[in-house]
Amino acid sequence: MTKITVFKKDYVTELVKIIRNTKNAQVLQKHLANYHDKDVAEAITRLNETERMQLYTMIGTPRLAEIFSYLDDAKPYLDELSLDKAARVISDMDADDALDILDELSAEQQQEMVARLDDDSRRDVKKLLSYEDDEIGSCMTNNYICIPDTLSIREAMSTLVRQAGEHDNISTIYTTDINGQFSGAIDLKDLIIARENDSLSNIISRSYPSVYEHGKIADCIEDLTDYEEDSIPVLSENGTIAGILTANDIVELVDNAMGDDYAKLAGLTSEEDLNEPTFTSMKKRLPWLIILLFLGMAVSSVVGMFESVVAVLPIVICFQSLVLDMAGNVGTQSLAVTIRVLMDEDLSTKKKLSLLIKEMKIGFLNGASLGIMALLFLGIYIHYFKKYIWASAFLISGCVGISLIVAMVISSFVGTIIPMFFHKIHIDPAVASGPLITTVNDLVAVITYYGLAMVFLINIFHI
Amino acid sequence: MTKITVFKKDYVTELVKIIRNTKNAQVLQKHLANYHDKDVAEAITRLNETERMQLYTMIGTPRLAEIFSYLDDAKPYLDELSLDKAARVISDMDADDALDILDELSAEQQQEMVARLDDDSRRDVKKLLSYEDDEIGSCMTNNYICIPDTLSIREAMSTLVRQAGEHDNISTIYTTDINGQFSGAIDLKDLIIARENDSLSNIISRSYPSVYEHGKIADCIEDLTDYEEDSIPVLSENGTIAGILTANDIVELVDNAMGDDYAKLAGLTSEEDLNEPTFTSMKKRLPWLIILLFLGMAVSSVVGMFESVVAVLPIVICFQSLVLDMAGNVGTQSLAVTIRVLMDEDLSTKKKLSLLIKEMKIGFLNGASLGIMALLFLGIYIHYFKKYIWASAFLISGCVGISLIVAMVISSFVGTIIPMFFHKIHIDPAVASGPLITTVNDLVAVITYYGLAMVFLINIFHI
Repeated sequence: MTKITVFKKDYVTELVKIIRNTKNAQVLQKHLANYHDKDVAEAITRLNETERMQLYTMIGTPRLAEIFSYLDDAKPYLDELSLDKAARVISDMDADDALDILDELSAEQQQEMVARLDDDSRRDVKKLLSYEDDEIGSCMTNNYICIPDTLSIREAMSTLVRQAGEHDNISTIYTTDINGQFSGAIDLKDLIIARENDSLSNIISRSYPSVYEHGKIADCIEDLTDYEEDSIPVLSENGTIAGILTANDIVELVDNAMGDDYAKLAGLTSEEDLNEPTFTSMKKRLPWLIILLFLGMAVSSVVGMFESVVAVLPIVICFQSLVLDMAGNVGTQSLAVTIRVLMDEDLSTKKKLSLLIKEMKIGFLNGASLGIMALLFLGIYIHYFKKYIWASAFLISGCVGISLIVAMVISSFVGTIIPMFFHKIHIDPAVASGPLITTVNDLVAVITYYGLAMVFLINIFHI
Repeated sequence: MTKITVFKKDYVTELVKIIRNTKNAQVLQKHLANYHDKDVAEAITRLNETERMQLYTMIGTPRLAEIFSYLDDAKPYLDELSLDKAARVISDMDADDALDILDELSAEQQQEMVARLDDDSRRDVKKLLSYEDDEIGSCMTNNYICIPDTLSIREAMSTLVRQAGEHDNISTIYTTDINGQFSGAIDLKDLIIARENDSLSNIISRSYPSVYEHGKIADCIEDLTDYEEDSIPVLSENGTIAGILTANDIVELVDNAMGDDYAKLAGLTSEEDLNEPTFTSMKKRLPWLIILLFLGMAVSSVVGMFESVVAVLPIVICFQSLVLDMAGNVGTQSLAVTIRVLMDEDLSTKKKLSLLIKEMKIGFLNGASLGIMALLFLGIYIHYFKKYIWASAFLISGCVGISLIVAMVISSFVGTIIPMFFHKIHIDPAVASGPLITTVNDLVAVITYYGLAMVFLINIFHI
């Protein structure tokens, strides 16, 4: 509902009507030309199969390829096409979009389809398939314009016009030297406003940023974002252009990277999808839970050492969950902050130390605030509801308060130092830190709380 | 270190050398023309003040404006310019970049600076300042090209060439009708390959997506991403173009939105910055902690009701933290999945129900796996280390196992239904759900575990 008030118009409903009511192919094509491929894709999902089958015959393969690129879940619609038509549609897509669709097919279907693609597409798709998922090459597109840097302005313009028919990403034009290696970039704007007898050299940026195809996405995503470019070239080892990353590719990279961080913080091995089968989701979550179970058992055995305290003074168990939960919360806050900082920047040792000190200061200040609240409110609660005399009530609540302060300072320390350590030894801190921090914090909180209770309440004050 | 292997070259070091060694302004300008503004901005931060002061006099205001737009923390560098030069630099920026820099100044400095901007910039900046932070208008740019839709192809091309001098975002050209209202978009590619006597009308997409300036960012971010466009126009209420969102603006929106989700999941009110003072960070974290403290106290008072169980059978306290932690972990997993799904899609009631059932199934399956492990391992532990006879040991560990299953199913349910509920009543589920879910899950886990222990272990089996 709310979306309609943000977007000017609900084009999809309009499109569904147009498609249902237009029986002439040319008229329909003319109508559809006004609409965005994404809206047409969404309209397609709202039609029934007969309506769709009719539509497929009425619009050409190139447009169908554009539209299919925007389908979230293209397989069922692809199955409605003949194998040959499907192959032609996929051949007409950019290689990265083609790959997204091929990924949805079974290994067998995929092989059959790749064999039917035209030669160019097959080569491009195979190239993309050769990269690891975390390599930049895996998400680049082959949709870019490239010209020799020795052309005149006039020749450059006419080469552009020729290539623009096939390639959309024209706002930055890449140049290659006589060896075919990447030599610079031209802002289309500069080419358009250049005079015919200017030299092309003057508008080529020779030191334009570029990344290597086998580079890791995680290592350059921040910089890619910072350049705020329409596209950045991806080079192969020998310096030729392998493809480009468009700003839209970068949107997707940022979305995935942040989604993964988010999932990992929640104890999921990777982001989940609504349509994924229960068993797949279960498998993504179980490994963490098993690790946490065994770490939890270790904590249990430590709690077991304080059975004697509880036997003498059962009231202390009331506040165990409070101290443990608060230590856990503070540890998670520090963990989340540290991980974001580690992802974003290369920190010097000095900066790391200052982050650590800052986190511990925050832990202490927040711990002190909460400790005082706990002392007051719990003291009153223990006196009135648990019928202890005022002195004993405040000794017990004081014990909770002090434990909160100690546990929160240590949790902040642990929540900062552990991800730094994993980052240092090149293990993904977002994955490894969570369970370890929870366990260490639980242990610290249990020992502080029951230890204090044993020494302070039982041995010294004999409550 | 790693970054150099991903990016082709370390242009920044190169630039620092060039700037230090070039004393002729024209030569320097020619050199710098080859480099990306972002790399020059980074080089500037590595120079000393004298070197910078010299640089400022050697490059023109327009380029300086581009470079300053890329500075993360521009204030100290801006302070090195005279007030007049600073105002000219800011006037030359896109309004959104200008605003980013003005935001770093104190209210007083900001006013003084705005007063010195040229008329156009002042108007544009004030316009941007008039939007709320969560409105689309607040992040749009005024850097776009717009032509009347009645022009011929030839006129359109020459208008483009005229406007391109000032505006970078030329890959989509917007058109307005005779009333000045937004009427469509032209892909620059189509304009370039069009023949001079074609009609402009044929290449205008009349149903191009557009958003309203006062729309909420959160409501359209997913769709904006899905369009994969170089830019989307932002309209004012009367249908005229107020600005555009570029793909790079959308990268930033996605980054911020996901960063906020991440922070909220970790119990931070918003994303934190490394350079932010301790007290600011503390204030961002304390509110949550206070809420959690009081909710924790509520849980404590429920635990207190089971003091009698603990007094009779102190061993049960060993596993309280285990059951509570596992319930919490499962609840967080369900919460994280549900929030991502709610953000991404408009779910029908049927889909929500199926998500709920799926989450509970996962909770049950994972609970059963962990419950069986707990039964076995804890039984052995209790027999050998706590010296209970086998039967009692397995009764106690069975009690933990069953509690794990029950707590994990209910936690999955709670972790899914609570964010759905908050989403329904238009409260941000990412903020509100965490503490409530923790508390409900703790309560459920405590009552299940101690309740089972009381009935099963004490009343029935008299361990």
